[in-house]
Amino acid sequence: MKPCIVWQTDFGLKWGAVASMKGVCKQVDPALECVDITHEIPQYNILAASRELAYVLPFWPKGTVFVSVVDPGVGTARKASVALLRDGNYVVTPDNGTLTHLFYEPGIREIREIDESVNRYPGTEHIAVFHGRDLFAYTAARLAAGVISFEGVGPAYPVEDVVLLPQGLIKAKTEEGRVEGFVGSVGDPFGSIALNVLTADFRKAGFAHGDLVHVTLARRGEVYFEQDVPYAKSFGFVPVGAPLLFDSSTNYIELGINQGSFRDKYQVQEGEDYSFCFQRI
Amino acid sequence: MKPCIVWQTDFGLKWGAVASMKGVCKQVDPALECVDITHEIPQYNILAASRELAYVLPFWPKGTVFVSVVDPGVGTARKASVALLRDGNYVVTPDNGTLTHLFYEPGIREIREIDESVNRYPGTEHIAVFHGRDLFAYTAARLAAGVISFEGVGPAYPVEDVVLLPQGLIKAKTEEGRVEGFVGSVGDPFGSIALNVLTADFRKAGFAHGDLVHVTLARRGEVYFEQDVPYAKSFGFVPVGAPLLFDSSTNYIELGINQGSFRDKYQVQEGEDYSFCFQRI
Amino acid sequence: MKPCIVWQTDFGLKWGAVASMKGVCKQVDPALECVDITHEIPQYNILAASRELAYVLPFWPKGTVFVSVVDPGVGTARKASVALLRDGNYVVTPDNGTLTHLFYEPGIREIREIDESVNRYPGTEHIAVFHGRDLFAYTAARLAAGVISFEGVGPAYPVEDVVLLPQGLIKAKTEEGRVEGFVGSVGDPFGSIALNVLTADFRKAGFAHGDLVHVTLARRGEVYFEQDVPYAKSFGFVPVGAPLLFDSSTNYIELGINQGSFRDKYQVQEGEDYSFCFQRI
Repeated sequence: MKPCIVWQTDFGLKWGAVASMKGVCKQVDPALECVDITHEIPQYNILAASRELAYVLPFWPKGTVFVSVVDPGVGTARKASVALLRDGNYVVTPDNGTLTHLFYEPGIREIREIDESVNRYPGTEHIAVFHGRDLFAYTAARLAAGVISFEGVGPAYPVEDVVLLPQGLIKAKTEEGRVEGFVGSVGDPFGSIALNVLTADFRKAGFAHGDLVHVTLARRGEVYFEQDVPYAKSFGFVPVGAPLLFDSSTNYIELGINQGSFRDKYQVQEGEDYSFCFQRI
Repeated sequence: MKPCIVWQTDFGLKWGAVASMKGVCKQVDPALECVDITHEIPQYNILAASRELAYVLPFWPKGTVFVSVVDPGVGTARKASVALLRDGNYVVTPDNGTLTHLFYEPGIREIREIDESVNRYPGTEHIAVFHGRDLFAYTAARLAAGVISFEGVGPAYPVEDVVLLPQGLIKAKTEEGRVEGFVGSVGDPFGSIALNVLTADFRKAGFAHGDLVHVTLARRGEVYFEQDVPYAKSFGFVPVGAPLLFDSSTNYIELGINQGSFRDKYQVQEGEDYSFCFQRI
Repeated sequence: MKPCIVWQTDFGLKWGAVASMKGVCKQVDPALECVDITHEIPQYNILAASRELAYVLPFWPKGTVFVSVVDPGVGTARKASVALLRDGNYVVTPDNGTLTHLFYEPGIREIREIDESVNRYPGTEHIAVFHGRDLFAYTAARLAAGVISFEGVGPAYPVEDVVLLPQGLIKAKTEEGRVEGFVGSVGDPFGSIALNVLTADFRKAGFAHGDLVHVTLARRGEVYFEQDVPYAKSFGFVPVGAPLLFDSSTNYIELGINQGSFRDKYQVQEGEDYSFCFQRI
């Protein structure tokens, strides 16, 4: 079987943009299957695109062709690229920071710039605003279908030149019984907030399920939440409406409320302005 | 061909949770096809999940593997199960009330609890908050792909032990020319409201297309709508903006407005607080 | 391989209507693949359905079976039809104006009314409100699967009888260095507005990338925007927050803001009340 093409964009699904990309793939090879991650990455938010891709990618078979189009610089000098990752997956994307998380884990083996003279959907030469369809979908389909090899994408360039976003990769400071960091993401639809500390690092700092943790949250230095919170296995281990720390499915520690939204209740946003401190009691 | 895996959750499609579940399926067998019902079941609303599943299931080929994940008790003692229905379909779900409607129609032939020691996606043993991916998707894929038989899911338990929700199954009181009941559902995107009376029972009470029906709606006993409404074949048989009763695609009687939203106009919600009475004129 | 069935409706994806249509297709032939355009066409907006279909269709392989269900007249005398286009694609739709854009480009070769006595999903004879599932999905699947030929749909009727909507097809007035028209569409999720002038006609009027264009926009005759705007290749060629004219992926000229929403900033709606004038400087 041919590899799937797996998509994420910030285009939304209220119009036909995504279906026109999939049509281009079907023209290249009707046997290609397209599966969506999401088309609701917050518009222009390259960091969110990078994070989401890194979250989903490990659960797919090796050799999958991922396409990510969050592309505020479409039509300008930023490179249109295909990365071959160290785990054997491909990512077709503007090289604008979308590869940040994957650069570190699993790492990029090789990266090539799409050669528009061979890998542009014919008849769209005058359109500069929809590389998602005219370059990325077309190239992804040709690669997945075996019409071109990875070399056929275009010229390779140094992996060190890949555009990286610094913000997403700062890790919390951990010491025995204490962690300090900030809110990494508030995208969970149930309203839990992800802290920038990996489950594994949290455990290494000496925290274990069943612990009570003194949690302090501050917004630009001003404390807005201070409470002893259980580190629980899952939501159902605390009463409805009560807060808990838990191991999320993304491998980061999250803070949530059983059947409630921590994000909405405390108006939490992501980024360094929203700091936290965990202290084991 | 292998059976489809057909999904519903309350996860939303703004992030990668659903795509990670589908990736797990493709790892089990790249030939498996995934089709979505919806990922916008109202959060934690098990009754809505039960109703939606019962609505869609009859239109799929027998042997389909349905996965429903509305799971406020994830990680606690509630059972993670696979039901084999009397019509030959499978439903992979937390046993938390999601099977209520299907228990009565078409009925459950056999139910088994997922044995985590063999049917958990390897490497996720420490995560308790995402059974959708780690247990349900993985088990559904193994079952659909033929990697395991139904017996391979885990130990059977008595069908009488299936968790049932009482609210969804109360039927309206019918007599010749008169029906009394309450609003069963307001989920229709066009804003029609479903009453808890089946089309067949409405007809048995003597109502026929073309009748004028005296409709009274009350909110906690207080009448907010009282009008003679035609029982029509479809929307276009009444003027734009006018109300009508009609046979819905779910086999329940609905009350709507031609090109308008009855639900929004009258702020109707579902449940026993929202009663109705139909009287033939 | 069998052709794909490609869908658009105004049903939304919060409930199971779409999945029940796809189930019907899988019952006809499990090998049929369904791909979505969108299920969020604005409710009852037939003109939007016509436009969206015409936008997506050229990017799909010939022989694809499109299904469009925006059907305020469901169950009334409007015809349920299948059109064979001049390019070899099929469109299954209520004949209510949805075929307007395709009638002109690529044109309709032949149109047939669905014969309910052979092409209705068995067991739904008493339901008149869901032709999407009971007629359109079932007929589309039988056609795509080869169960019926195009002749098997039902009786042909004259292409001249196809219902057309006048509003969508008025073109802007162009002369050398000047274009006058109105806003054709505001559906772009990034908030650009589409003017009713084709890129090709704009170029013929003498405009070229790099030009500054004096743009005047009026709402019922009252000017609300008057500015010199660059005609640029893409968003990234103007500063963030600045307006630009550009060649859109739909082949119409659009007016947008780099990383902003022109529609939201100026509260633009579509239609003849929202006129524009472009004057080359």
